[in-house]
Amino acid sequence: MSQSLFPDDRHLGLLTDLYELTMAAGYYVHGLAEQRVTFELFMRRVPACRNLLIAGGLEQAVHYLRQLSFSREQIDYLRRHPAFAKIPGDWFDRLASLRFDGDVWAVPEGTVVFGNEPLLRITGPLMIGQIVETYLIATLTMQTLVASKAARVVTAAQGRPVIDFGSRRAHGPQAGLLAARAAYLAGCAGTSNVEAGRLLNIPTLGTQAHAWIMAWGDEVQAFRHFGELFPNVATLLIDTYDTPQGARNAIAAGVDFQAVRLDSGDLGALSTEVRRILDDAGKQDVKIVASGDLNETKIRDLLKAGAPIDTFGVGTELVTSRDEPTLSTVYKLVEQETDAGVVGRCKLSKDKTTYPFAKQIYRSSDATGYISGDLVARATDNAAGEPLLTPVLRGGQLVQPLPSLEAIRTHCQAQLQRLPPRLLQLERGEPYPVRFSDELEAAVRK
Amino acid sequence: MSQSLFPDDRHLGLLTDLYELTMAAGYYVHGLAEQRVTFELFMRRVPACRNLLIAGGLEQAVHYLRQLSFSREQIDYLRRHPAFAKIPGDWFDRLASLRFDGDVWAVPEGTVVFGNEPLLRITGPLMIGQIVETYLIATLTMQTLVASKAARVVTAAQGRPVIDFGSRRAHGPQAGLLAARAAYLAGCAGTSNVEAGRLLNIPTLGTQAHAWIMAWGDEVQAFRHFGELFPNVATLLIDTYDTPQGARNAIAAGVDFQAVRLDSGDLGALSTEVRRILDDAGKQDVKIVASGDLNETKIRDLLKAGAPIDTFGVGTELVTSRDEPTLSTVYKLVEQETDAGVVGRCKLSKDKTTYPFAKQIYRSSDATGYISGDLVARATDNAAGEPLLTPVLRGGQLVQPLPSLEAIRTHCQAQLQRLPPRLLQLERGEPYPVRFSDELEAAVRK
Repeated sequence: MSQSLFPDDRHLGLLTDLYELTMAAGYYVHGLAEQRVTFELFMRRVPACRNLLIAGGLEQAVHYLRQLSFSREQIDYLRRHPAFAKIPGDWFDRLASLRFDGDVWAVPEGTVVFGNEPLLRITGPLMIGQIVETYLIATLTMQTLVASKAARVVTAAQGRPVIDFGSRRAHGPQAGLLAARAAYLAGCAGTSNVEAGRLLNIPTLGTQAHAWIMAWGDEVQAFRHFGELFPNVATLLIDTYDTPQGARNAIAAGVDFQAVRLDSGDLGALSTEVRRILDDAGKQDVKIVASGDLNETKIRDLLKAGAPIDTFGVGTELVTSRDEPTLSTVYKLVEQETDAGVVGRCKLSKDKTTYPFAKQIYRSSDATGYISGDLVARATDNAAGEPLLTPVLRGGQLVQPLPSLEAIRTHCQAQLQRLPPRLLQLERGEPYPVRFSDELEAAVRK
Repeated sequence: MSQSLFPDDRHLGLLTDLYELTMAAGYYVHGLAEQRVTFELFMRRVPACRNLLIAGGLEQAVHYLRQLSFSREQIDYLRRHPAFAKIPGDWFDRLASLRFDGDVWAVPEGTVVFGNEPLLRITGPLMIGQIVETYLIATLTMQTLVASKAARVVTAAQGRPVIDFGSRRAHGPQAGLLAARAAYLAGCAGTSNVEAGRLLNIPTLGTQAHAWIMAWGDEVQAFRHFGELFPNVATLLIDTYDTPQGARNAIAAGVDFQAVRLDSGDLGALSTEVRRILDDAGKQDVKIVASGDLNETKIRDLLKAGAPIDTFGVGTELVTSRDEPTLSTVYKLVEQETDAGVVGRCKLSKDKTTYPFAKQIYRSSDATGYISGDLVARATDNAAGEPLLTPVLRGGQLVQPLPSLEAIRTHCQAQLQRLPPRLLQLERGEPYPVRFSDELEAAVRK
């Protein structure tokens, strides 16, 4: 039987690595399953080709935690799995009733974050805290990755709209939806993904494909038919045969159209020539949309050279974060509540040291309002600065409704305005200072 | 309301770009919707860091085509969308009954393919052929991307098992499932993704996380508890504090274990040292698993230097195809059946020329059995060589059951064995010759 490989939203329990479940069974057998612990999720570093990260994906992570359960079929699969041959039957029964009932603190989506800063902190029973690792990492990584890339592309476009055209090159159909959401929250003006528009209320935009032009054979006729049907939204694709001639054919079609799109060739030279053709025909109000393997540096260079492009369609580079398609996200046990009290936990592997204890990020600003440095300290401290992690779930229940995508987008724009200019450059600038408290530094030096 | 953003498998219609739907409406209004046409999907080129591609994702593409429909809510969304303000109501009614009833030919999954070779060819009504573009590209790109990367990693491991550990770094939860499938079909030995194991019958494997070690505080105790519970599958993670001492602690735990895992540090030197510690303790049968940002070149270099590693866990690099996280996949109208007969269609944009007409790939082999060159010709030709595209759907119905994932995997292994050695090297070799027939070349030179 063929399958789409969309997970079953009602039973997300097995969307995890096998070792999470063997460890979960081990904790259970040894009476540790319900021990209260804290895990933190963070990116080890900002990639070398970025100056910052934009937190994304929390809504989907919270949805997962509230939704998490195991179906009978999933539990039967585990019962038959050779790894669990020695695990007593009551563990499988426990899985059937398992729900996430812990506490979650997180950095709000759209917030600027840096390496080693916890984006999400879970306090709850050890067993379930372990099981959720894989899904939480995947979910927060994907949208943080694309939001961080999108913020660069939007910044490079200097106020001109950037549209996500990337669904076809995202890593599968769900990735297209996730990318559309992440791109929009970080400032893109819309997406071509219609289902993302319906589910998330993101503006959806589009032009036409070369197939439309080719289906008619004649370019003028193709443009005329399109303009007649879509007079308010018509963007005519003029590069199928010859771009300047395409612009002249768009005018010759004698219909209303809002924009023309260039999808190939030297976009700088062609946009200049097309602008002149349009202006000479009195079409000063017709916009020029450019697309075709664009990214933030190409957009910056086009605008620096004076290319009269009004809107950018960005696909592959945006939704795959092509120059760095991953983040160094990890999820670490940092604290345990034992009979002897709270114990910090940390890993001391070479180059992979982690700081113990539940933490908070305290962000400072300078006199101009720019953010100037972060202190990561124990959550029980009360350091100076704006605390970034806020309570999201308490006992598995929402502390307050999650913000809307529009509110997240507004928050992200405000965040970008508080960045010192060096962090908004496309090149790597002087790193933003993130300091760990003396107590935390002392704890890992021990 | 929060959502996971898993698409609704029963109604995949809106998982497309807006322009596919505006064009579809346009074709409908102008009486072209039911015109019989052919679209082809292909990658423009093999990426510079690859020598070949492994076709993947066909099962999910076929599932989509057979499943495709629009829900009432989706159609209502389109009715309210400003782009469709001038589209008559009967188009929306037509969408409600739309099903894919065309013909599909495709290259079987697991087959080696090259740039410009059609992986999938659809012949059917223009309107639906246009709508399915976005989803088909995303689906075939994702698995072809990961399968192509996986084949390199598996080749570099020279027969040692490679396990997909990448679910947490895939581009969202569905991407993790798709990556697990693609990695397995291209030769990986298994995955850590439990749901992929359940849904696809892929062997699932795992070790333990640093959290397990840290939860116990004491490494010997952590190993002992794990070995007691999982005597047949125990792989002990020995790098949490100090790797050689971890190996000694594993032995000191006094339990059965199958393997140790190294996840950080100099894997070459550490594996050698750990091997000696294990052997000195009479544990010659204990395997060494290595992981930690591995890829095909690191694996090759480790093995070349004699590192005694038995199994490789590969994550991020595999599931994101990190060195090139995308493929140049396009979907082009190539042929139209008009009143005047069959007309070839092609795009002449600079650097983006496409060949017209429905095509077939004919593959030749040399005397040693290695594949030696492909000819792409019109599907109506009968050229020499093995035709690669085979019929999959006729009138929307399966021509024959799709092959099992195991059969695909076997086919892929056979394909790799027929490759001339230069194509199996990690470096870019002399390109494999792909020639277009004289008729097709003449058609684009016109």
